Amino acid sequence: MIQLNQDLKRGDQSADGRLGEQLVFRGEPGYVAGVDIGGTHLRMLLADLNGDPVARWKISLPSNGKDPKSVCALIREGLQALCRDAGAKISSVLHLTAGAPGITDAYQGVVRSAPNLTGWLDVNLGELLHQALRIDVKIENDTNLAALGEHWRGAARHTDNFVFIAMGTGIGAGIFLRGQLYHGAAWTAGEIGYLRVSGLPNEPLQLAETGQLERAIGGEGIEADWRARLRSAGHSEGELRTLRASQIFDGATEGDIEAHAVLDRVATILADALTTLTLLINPDLVVIGGGVGSHPALCESVDRLLRQTDFPHPKIYRSALDTEAQLYGAISLSLSEVARRSLQD
Amino acid sequence: MIQLNQDLKRGDQSADGRLGEQLVFRGEPGYVAGVDIGGTHLRMLLADLNGDPVARWKISLPSNGKDPKSVCALIREGLQALCRDAGAKISSVLHLTAGAPGITDAYQGVVRSAPNLTGWLDVNLGELLHQALRIDVKIENDTNLAALGEHWRGAARHTDNFVFIAMGTGIGAGIFLRGQLYHGAAWTAGEIGYLRVSGLPNEPLQLAETGQLERAIGGEGIEADWRARLRSAGHSEGELRTLRASQIFDGATEGDIEAHAVLDRVATILADALTTLTLLINPDLVVIGGGVGSHPALCESVDRLLRQTDFPHPKIYRSALDTEAQLYGAISLSLSEVARRSLQD
Repeated sequence: MIQLNQDLKRGDQSADGRLGEQLVFRGEPGYVAGVDIGGTHLRMLLADLNGDPVARWKISLPSNGKDPKSVCALIREGLQALCRDAGAKISSVLHLTAGAPGITDAYQGVVRSAPNLTGWLDVNLGELLHQALRIDVKIENDTNLAALGEHWRGAARHTDNFVFIAMGTGIGAGIFLRGQLYHGAAWTAGEIGYLRVSGLPNEPLQLAETGQLERAIGGEGIEADWRARLRSAGHSEGELRTLRASQIFDGATEGDIEAHAVLDRVATILADALTTLTLLINPDLVVIGGGVGSHPALCESVDRLLRQTDFPHPKIYRSALDTEAQLYGAISLSLSEVARRSLQD
Repeated sequence: MIQLNQDLKRGDQSADGRLGEQLVFRGEPGYVAGVDIGGTHLRMLLADLNGDPVARWKISLPSNGKDPKSVCALIREGLQALCRDAGAKISSVLHLTAGAPGITDAYQGVVRSAPNLTGWLDVNLGELLHQALRIDVKIENDTNLAALGEHWRGAARHTDNFVFIAMGTGIGAGIFLRGQLYHGAAWTAGEIGYLRVSGLPNEPLQLAETGQLERAIGGEGIEADWRARLRSAGHSEGELRTLRASQIFDGATEGDIEAHAVLDRVATILADALTTLTLLINPDLVVIGGGVGSHPALCESVDRLLRQTDFPHPKIYRSALDTEAQLYGAISLSLSEVARRSLQD
């Protein structure tokens, strides 16, 4: 991935004593950082110039601390913690890539809309982060980063045409065509969270609101469906178990009838969305990931549903990187940026 | 478009006395031919090596003569008629491209499925046509050819990212990304005729059958909707006017209330499909063409519906080449093949 020049060389400064060489930048160990801004958590990863992780950091996003400035301050705190852990200087972090959960203009570093982070409309996150950190940064859509991560070190290493579906709090798709991320004309390619769900009433699309597919089978939609089914099965409010989507899917595999009905509904709606995707983009492979999407029972159910027609359908793989796909993608993008800039110098 | 080498030179043999030079092949005027195999008609175009048309030919497809061999025989008849008209020798036709109305493996020249030509499943049209004509041929999906035509000499000359929607007997999309046709992993990219229509019952996709969107707003679906509305408005069977879809749209612009209701329904369903397309592919431009799709009233209605949300939407243009878009695309592809082979010799 990295093109070596005189600034960027293979050295033997590997601090952890591994046999492999570590890439160094102007004679010093260099690092890159990745950030995943989720709806509920902030995750960060520090990696050396081979792309190997050296430190991880995670924090819950307080519900009143999701505004852009607070998030930037948390990222600064995280970067300091990562460097402390790895025994690295902040100045040795050559580049940072942050993934945002919404429509993102990767060229300008502007988050156009992120409904799961209330109030994020046209936020120049690239500029804010550069001011807070004083290092080079790049901003991308989080699902696009996850696609990049799966292509680099995950389930899509052997194909240049695939779609990554992220299902967690939100739902989106990262589209990878002919070996590159495909963004579309207005950075909205892959915004499948706004797809219509068969059987639900028509409604106009609204940029600042979450979409119909996301509300139906995103984490909160699944959990609400579960509670509604228990309620209509006669359970009292006091008895209602509050489970996360992945726990409900666990229940389905263990034979719980209500949980199985929830899983069936999610798989049917997701299979419909993948059919639409196949009719338009016809990818070779679909990788399903995210906290909800990477559950084995969901991938199996969707695969089975898609095989029921004679229409060509993509291979369905589970994410190989789970919740770290976006972070790996961020590291991969930062490494490309370091290599590109090093060649330009 | 054409790369000149010693076989392919600019000469002054222009038979029609035009001021421009005509490209010649090994000292002789050369030609390429394009074929559009529609659900009801066969159209052909002969062009010189500048891509300028020199003769046109069209014939109705008899309902009992749509099998592959009969279609190949008709194409042979058409090629002879075109050459007679242009005063050209058959041996001076260097290449022919045929567009098929269905899922087409352009690499192998095989039509996988064409529901509007009953019985066409896995037809090796490339081989059949080569046997019938003894010239080099290429097979493509008809809508992909139309996209290529609009990019070469039509409404999409200035963009390398757009989608062409063909609406006639059938409905399909040709996807053009980063300056190239995009086919997908199993040649089904852009098969929007199979998209679901909101409000209609779910049904499994079947490769050998027409899809739900195509049945709802393809030519026959529009005409059936029109007759049903007249019937429920109290017209007797004898009074029912049989109009073609484009005549119904004409009626709508002239103030006919039933015709306007038909147009509204078609525009609403098409706008929904374009919203899906935008969410996934987010093209810069959508060009709508085909016998039904290129009606100005339809393009205007769809454009108005898409502007009703704050979501990014593509520009909507009408086809500039109308029913000849596919033929121009075929000519463009044949010219590229002639140039490529000439460079390989």
